[in-house]
Amino acid sequence: MTGPLRGVHRRRDGLRLSDIDDGGPTGLIAVDAMGADADPRVLVDGVARAALAAPRLRYALFGDAGRLAEALEAAPEAAPEVAARVEIRHAPGMVSMADKPSDAIRRADGTSMAAALDCVASGEAAAAVSSGNTGALMALATLRLGRVEGVARPAIAVLWPTIVAGKQTIVLDVGADVKMDARNLAQCASMGSIYAGAGFGVARPRVGLLNIGSEAHKGLSVLREAGERIAAAARSQGYEYVGFIEANDIPMDVVDVAVTDGFTGNVALKAAEGTARLIQNKMRETLKGSPLAMLGGLLAYRALKDMKRSMDPRAVNGGVFLGVRGAVVKSHGSVDAIGFAAALGLATRVGVAGLSGRLAQLIELETAA
Amino acid sequence: MTGPLRGVHRRRDGLRLSDIDDGGPTGLIAVDAMGADADPRVLVDGVARAALAAPRLRYALFGDAGRLAEALEAAPEAAPEVAARVEIRHAPGMVSMADKPSDAIRRADGTSMAAALDCVASGEAAAAVSSGNTGALMALATLRLGRVEGVARPAIAVLWPTIVAGKQTIVLDVGADVKMDARNLAQCASMGSIYAGAGFGVARPRVGLLNIGSEAHKGLSVLREAGERIAAAARSQGYEYVGFIEANDIPMDVVDVAVTDGFTGNVALKAAEGTARLIQNKMRETLKGSPLAMLGGLLAYRALKDMKRSMDPRAVNGGVFLGVRGAVVKSHGSVDAIGFAAALGLATRVGVAGLSGRLAQLIELETAA
Repeated sequence: MTGPLRGVHRRRDGLRLSDIDDGGPTGLIAVDAMGADADPRVLVDGVARAALAAPRLRYALFGDAGRLAEALEAAPEAAPEVAARVEIRHAPGMVSMADKPSDAIRRADGTSMAAALDCVASGEAAAAVSSGNTGALMALATLRLGRVEGVARPAIAVLWPTIVAGKQTIVLDVGADVKMDARNLAQCASMGSIYAGAGFGVARPRVGLLNIGSEAHKGLSVLREAGERIAAAARSQGYEYVGFIEANDIPMDVVDVAVTDGFTGNVALKAAEGTARLIQNKMRETLKGSPLAMLGGLLAYRALKDMKRSMDPRAVNGGVFLGVRGAVVKSHGSVDAIGFAAALGLATRVGVAGLSGRLAQLIELETAA
Repeated sequence: MTGPLRGVHRRRDGLRLSDIDDGGPTGLIAVDAMGADADPRVLVDGVARAALAAPRLRYALFGDAGRLAEALEAAPEAAPEVAARVEIRHAPGMVSMADKPSDAIRRADGTSMAAALDCVASGEAAAAVSSGNTGALMALATLRLGRVEGVARPAIAVLWPTIVAGKQTIVLDVGADVKMDARNLAQCASMGSIYAGAGFGVARPRVGLLNIGSEAHKGLSVLREAGERIAAAARSQGYEYVGFIEANDIPMDVVDVAVTDGFTGNVALKAAEGTARLIQNKMRETLKGSPLAMLGGLLAYRALKDMKRSMDPRAVNGGVFLGVRGAVVKSHGSVDAIGFAAALGLATRVGVAGLSGRLAQLIELETAA
């Protein structure tokens, strides 16, 4: 349990912006390396990849020490230089994907998930990343890190690719709170707009509320009430409320923030993932379908590969917990090393740059107002 | 208001299967040609395209007679042979996209939408197609055609493309009933499985309930209760209940029928549409990005075009109303001629082949049981 970072204590919101100089961010990222659908070896490989890209960051891996040491040994990306910055901390317990949040809370002590979160709670780590059970992670994060003052329900925000290169739409909630009232939805609008501003430099974020039509009378009554609350808050909170949007608007860059409840957001996200996989599948078949298509595919290979990379759901993998006191990123459950590295990159961005603390301050201000 | 089909009366469920011989289906399709986001000229062009593919079918177009005559004159596909099978019937009123269903009902008389539905109600037309206001169309269809005995709420079913060529997953509801209780969801499972069986020859349809995780405790409590009801009904109704599925499972051919409420289904559908458009957009940019990519794109042009066609959301355009006494198909609001022709083809399939009547009988049997 001892390691090079023992005794280092940080403010709860991680390092300040001033900690980052030309050598890249410094600090520690806590990783729950067990309990996901993904093999721990894949996660450890993801850590090694992320470590290569951030040469001054350190990583604490929580899980079965024996298995993790083996995985680190075997990781293709883990050069000695990388391995020196990765520390394994034994946490034999595991929250499984099937555990109910209530069960996970009861049995949390000694699990890799709880240990990773505690490492953030103590101020040692700047952020925690897990690809385990979402509901359990949210419940444990809320319990061990605490909620931001004034926030009724934390939310999970993801970045959704758009037609504008390099620009993503923030979508929240995508799975924390499956049933929201109008007040919860309005808080999501606040948190999302603060995230767009502080995290992505959007001066006056455009916020839309996901519905099944843009007409004011459409959809569920809770959405009409939420729309009124959001419209009323927009002016004082410095964002623009554009009204109801539909799910096909999300990638069209008509909003910076799309607000919805955790059930609907999760379904939308999975529907988009499924469609991307369907098209990728058809594409592969198509380019094998005839000699001409094969040749064409070969010539366009690099371009298509670049496109695939720019559209890669793994590159935008990671849901940021908003409304919790500390940086926590949920990675996709059945993730590969590239995807897990992306989630670690997001955690670095949110945690190490102090964004998490700034978000907490701003959210507290707005929800108190 | 007179025409070649005046005086022809049909059973409410349209023509019987025996009416179809080698010359293709015969009968009349009623078309609401006004009130959509799409230009009536586009819709009329779609009718002309559909008429070319079904040389013995006739079409009654409802709307402003002057504008429709002009549109028919201008339609690129409307050869004299086609035009002879298209009859314009003056209905000056229009249900607008912004009308609430209750307002649409009050002001329905004389609208192109109500007139098209009445043409089915009288037994003259085998099916009605509209790309107008969904809520109004469902309300008017329920009122003028009647609900199938035992059905609490009719639903809209769409066909979702899958990784298996030519195979689609039936998804319902996608917008009729935004808030469903467990009983409504279980009725959707029954109606969807009957549609899969009678419409697509699936002997023992696999039915899944859309949720945000496959674990039994996940999601909304109404889904747990609905799951129990569906599981109990599956055996007696001859389908297989596979349990909870996620939206990314829909295109993966793990079910034949995906059941959800109208709000969630509509969001999922729009999220898929938006993703397909996003990828198409990136693809176009990619294949223009470099000379090599352009050449590759040119060589693979036909294959990519075929793929685009096989994935074209327009080709699966059309939501079938289940639980209503008569064949009604809702086309996408902002549709083009190809998409509208696809909706007319679906209406032909459901209406003219007598499927609608068979569905009504079977649904009545099951819901009475």
